[in-house]
Amino acid sequence: MRSRSRPGVAGRDADRSQAVLPQRDGRHRPHQLYIVGIGPGRLEHLTLRATEVLRSVDCVAGYSLYIDLIQALIDGKETLRSGMMKEVKRVEAAITAAMSGKTCALVSSGDPGIYAMAGLVFETCKTKNIRLRPHGPTETDRAEAPALMVEVVPGIPALCAGAALLGAPLTHDFAVVSLSDLLTPWEVIAERLEAAARADFVIVIYNPKSKKRDWQLEAACKIILAHRDPATPVGIVTAAMRPNQEVQIVPLQKLSSVEVGMQTTLFVGSRSSIRYLEFMFTPRGYSTKYEIR
Amino acid sequence: MRSRSRPGVAGRDADRSQAVLPQRDGRHRPHQLYIVGIGPGRLEHLTLRATEVLRSVDCVAGYSLYIDLIQALIDGKETLRSGMMKEVKRVEAAITAAMSGKTCALVSSGDPGIYAMAGLVFETCKTKNIRLRPHGPTETDRAEAPALMVEVVPGIPALCAGAALLGAPLTHDFAVVSLSDLLTPWEVIAERLEAAARADFVIVIYNPKSKKRDWQLEAACKIILAHRDPATPVGIVTAAMRPNQEVQIVPLQKLSSVEVGMQTTLFVGSRSSIRYLEFMFTPRGYSTKYEIR
Repeated sequence: MRSRSRPGVAGRDADRSQAVLPQRDGRHRPHQLYIVGIGPGRLEHLTLRATEVLRSVDCVAGYSLYIDLIQALIDGKETLRSGMMKEVKRVEAAITAAMSGKTCALVSSGDPGIYAMAGLVFETCKTKNIRLRPHGPTETDRAEAPALMVEVVPGIPALCAGAALLGAPLTHDFAVVSLSDLLTPWEVIAERLEAAARADFVIVIYNPKSKKRDWQLEAACKIILAHRDPATPVGIVTAAMRPNQEVQIVPLQKLSSVEVGMQTTLFVGSRSSIRYLEFMFTPRGYSTKYEIR
Repeated sequence: MRSRSRPGVAGRDADRSQAVLPQRDGRHRPHQLYIVGIGPGRLEHLTLRATEVLRSVDCVAGYSLYIDLIQALIDGKETLRSGMMKEVKRVEAAITAAMSGKTCALVSSGDPGIYAMAGLVFETCKTKNIRLRPHGPTETDRAEAPALMVEVVPGIPALCAGAALLGAPLTHDFAVVSLSDLLTPWEVIAERLEAAARADFVIVIYNPKSKKRDWQLEAACKIILAHRDPATPVGIVTAAMRPNQEVQIVPLQKLSSVEVGMQTTLFVGSRSSIRYLEFMFTPRGYSTKYEIR
């Protein structure tokens, strides 16, 4: 139950001088790993912090498509590219690079903590018994040389990028569920969908379909339709803020016949979500308490 | 069921020239409203797009604290400041400014679509019957002069900022619930907490407590404890990435006695969430499928 105030993280300039320009005297220079979210795709949706970190590090690890998206920022740097489904290998390569003394950024699209690489970094470090420390100096152990200093740099997640294009579907309580049953049993996914539908959450669905997973979306629709009006608006966003972006809103009853893919995120409205022109939104309840004229 | 490919939004340069530097000939210049997320607090967590929009607009509307956080970007601009609980008035002021011909940015902390102002903008426009259009040219109605062109500019939400500081609590399915019963009946909130706890979602809790709402957190803990181990790790993040930042991890059974406030976000682990050193994370299941050595 230890409290961390992390003055170095909060004090911006002090923090940056150590993080981005580590001491070059070779003594007590901490090994540094950044887990960086690059947002939905276009460089303008990266944060300034993510941009700075990517410019400063020695090497960048990631899925090849994501490295291509940020190539303009990291030209000339060492890259550790890997293919889809190679997550374990990719994370191990990034940790190995950082432990060898290079500053390394492991990149994920969207936010690195939502269905992305951050969890696997911590899981791997725990398994390997690597001593991790939050980024920045702390009050108690500034003098120690930790095994690995880690900073998760948040990015705009697909759920925010998609919601922004649709209007405001997430202004009230929502649940986020992945339909990928590669690592999670379908029974667990189905139970979560049922619970979220019954309790009237807006439901954000990641990974609705892939070449090999072609029946889960229809099964999910059946579960949700048991608790929600067939006319409920559903936002379908594919490749948000990328050149091939597609945005549409359909009634829930038509969702299972719509074309979706690996880059699609779905936003199933709650009982109070409303479609207005080309947008959908979920009221928070102001109109029942205040008069909007 | 109309599809929007929005070539103008995807084509970066074409888009920006119209968005940030609107035509100055006075004919068909669309009224423009931006709903901008400024992220958790420090300017370095704004996106480049948010920074650009804030620099380009004629006026900025928002809660005074948020306008102070971005003052360096908007010095000299007209500001429409308002206090807490004045959301309806704030949104109406921003819409009025935009409809009068000024480009206006309505700012929210975090992401503008998550428990923030975007929903109320769409709700108000629907009530007032204002014709809204997505930002950027579209194939069909480029020549028309729409009533109001709106762009939601996503920001890093508190749930990503807090998760980044804690490690990776959100790498698997999660539900997001606000404990504020000012606009939502407590029975609805309680039902959602119960459903999320039962179906083993990680639960992100916004607005756990305020001066006037002092019993809801304890009630929420009781509901969750009925379905989850008392030792489940809970991340408590207050004022993420602001000077007064506090981060701690406690077992669920101690949560109701911890000091939390208006700037606190809570992350209640699922049955598989793990604490490791000063971090918590939720495994996605790689270790059951692949060997991590």
